[in-house]
Amino acid sequence: MAVASAPGTDSLAERAAKLRIVDTDIHHDLPGAATLRPYLASKWHAWLEDGGPSFAARGVAHVGSGRMDDSVNEADGLCAGDPDWVVEQLIKKYRIDLGILTGTMYALNAQRDVRFLTAFASAYNDWQLDRWVRPYPCFKASIILAAQDPESAAREVHRLGGDPGVVQVLLPGLGQIPFGQRIYWPIYRAAVEHGLPIGVHPTADVGNTGPQTSVGWYGSFLEHHTDHSQAFMAQTISLIVEGVFEEFPSLKFALIEGGFGWAPYVAGRLDRIYPALKREVPYLRKLPSEYLRDHFYFSTQPIEEPKDPRHFEQMLRMVGEDKILFASDYPHWDFDNPLTVLHGLSPETRRKICVDNVLACYGERLLEPST
Amino acid sequence: MAVASAPGTDSLAERAAKLRIVDTDIHHDLPGAATLRPYLASKWHAWLEDGGPSFAARGVAHVGSGRMDDSVNEADGLCAGDPDWVVEQLIKKYRIDLGILTGTMYALNAQRDVRFLTAFASAYNDWQLDRWVRPYPCFKASIILAAQDPESAAREVHRLGGDPGVVQVLLPGLGQIPFGQRIYWPIYRAAVEHGLPIGVHPTADVGNTGPQTSVGWYGSFLEHHTDHSQAFMAQTISLIVEGVFEEFPSLKFALIEGGFGWAPYVAGRLDRIYPALKREVPYLRKLPSEYLRDHFYFSTQPIEEPKDPRHFEQMLRMVGEDKILFASDYPHWDFDNPLTVLHGLSPETRRKICVDNVLACYGERLLEPST
Repeated sequence: MAVASAPGTDSLAERAAKLRIVDTDIHHDLPGAATLRPYLASKWHAWLEDGGPSFAARGVAHVGSGRMDDSVNEADGLCAGDPDWVVEQLIKKYRIDLGILTGTMYALNAQRDVRFLTAFASAYNDWQLDRWVRPYPCFKASIILAAQDPESAAREVHRLGGDPGVVQVLLPGLGQIPFGQRIYWPIYRAAVEHGLPIGVHPTADVGNTGPQTSVGWYGSFLEHHTDHSQAFMAQTISLIVEGVFEEFPSLKFALIEGGFGWAPYVAGRLDRIYPALKREVPYLRKLPSEYLRDHFYFSTQPIEEPKDPRHFEQMLRMVGEDKILFASDYPHWDFDNPLTVLHGLSPETRRKICVDNVLACYGERLLEPST
Repeated sequence: MAVASAPGTDSLAERAAKLRIVDTDIHHDLPGAATLRPYLASKWHAWLEDGGPSFAARGVAHVGSGRMDDSVNEADGLCAGDPDWVVEQLIKKYRIDLGILTGTMYALNAQRDVRFLTAFASAYNDWQLDRWVRPYPCFKASIILAAQDPESAAREVHRLGGDPGVVQVLLPGLGQIPFGQRIYWPIYRAAVEHGLPIGVHPTADVGNTGPQTSVGWYGSFLEHHTDHSQAFMAQTISLIVEGVFEEFPSLKFALIEGGFGWAPYVAGRLDRIYPALKREVPYLRKLPSEYLRDHFYFSTQPIEEPKDPRHFEQMLRMVGEDKILFASDYPHWDFDNPLTVLHGLSPETRRKICVDNVLACYGERLLEPST
């Protein structure tokens, strides 16, 4: 049995002890939609020629957004499109032992043409395992889905959920129906069956969704980027209030790139109102804040940075130091350098965030070989 | 010159020192739409017979929501519809010296028929001054507007903004366009000219708006109530990022019933991203968190109550103890009793929240007679 990052005969505990940094948000990319041709039935090939869903999902490129200047490989002009390049430029350079691939969200929940999106997701998932995960012990896959067709999406979870290279089911944060509602439960049931957490990552407000606020369209990328978290709050509240965690007590969510400074508001406001309204939700058996504490993890990038550094530590403690996961968000423009970020924290807290919490969220599969 | 609560010759400072509690969120109510008939041109009377805009705005009555059981006057079956009743039942009983009336929002920003809504708002504002404010020194008025017609709305601010009984321009939290955008600036210009803060209060998601989340419709009142705050976050972010406070340096916002536990997220996330994106918003001259600190107040009801009381104090300190305003939300079901709430805090902090901060936000007009 080989370890993920350095084959050998270590026990899981020994392998875990050797980890320095696990990165939970690495955006690898398709070199181009045509890359998926070998993975996709021919009836869908015409869609690839039109660029697939990726162009719609990239409709919010404002000044300042985009990728890091040094993340483009001059040899092929691609950004994070080649695993060897990412190994050199991210994994080795920043001493990362394991990375969870989050790709591009393609706003799959939010777009139309659900039959194509479902086929696209399967092709992408296969390509990713084939090209990135099986040949490279440092990478693990998130599988993507078109969750607006939950039956097909659940089938995809069953198709790949047992693959040792897959560690997460990943949903984009927007959609037409909140994540707590029962239409999504087949996906959660399948994820639980395979022991996979659900990751949620921001996505563009395109296609079937309205703006990412409930009060209209924003006027800048700075606003768009800050508004991401509100979709996460609404999804989190819906998941708790709709009773998802009574139905699926082992289900975990990893909220990626949504921040965590808002968690005290969600926990405090729900707990405050819950006693007066609990007859409305008689299926809940714990305080809302207990579901938040027991079922959610939060990634670090972009971490809220208040002016007063004591406030950052207080926020961390309110949310729980064991609930925070390191994420670099490579190769995006607001990349967090793993070697310099979080150094205001104690080595113990830093170790939790960079290794222990990630293992607690994603489980032992992270340490197993992918082939 | 008479004082608001007890006529005499005291200076403003002496009057302020005598205040025990100022309540910033008292929902008085129209006994019925027909009440406005004398205040409204006859061409609009047919609308009143259909109930006016109030019924649409009340479309979210779920189990547990609504008014306090003991707030209905058995003599007339009305709830907060009679000022004498509210004086007895709220003002005297809970030793409140001054109260800011917030009425019913009528979701004016969010409904159609803007000509009628504009006329309705003016009639309501006149009725309120006539029936509640001028005869009762303990009440001050918030004027309401249909902000989707900013020119007419600004005219209404000019029409009544100099009235000594008016202390606030009140907007419902939802609408089709975020509050930072320039269409609203005529309203802000008028408010600044009259030295009035803008209050924002949650409202129902009816009429022209979509759901109050960006991810679809919620399934319970518990969720609806908790989601209120997200609209406030988006509005706050928009106000900061669009440069409203560079154009109107003296403008203040009072965020009522939206909580404040989310403010560290907004401040921290904006400050974190701002340095990388500031060329997108070159008109800003301060850190985003500085605008938040300098221009926003937050009311207490419903205050987030984390399980760990130390977390509550930390949240209070992060937001700033001088930014919190006491609000009872009378006569709503989740009313905060002014005599028992906040008693975990020091007397100094409690005094700030119940009196000093309210005076800082609303100014001396609160202490002047209304006639």
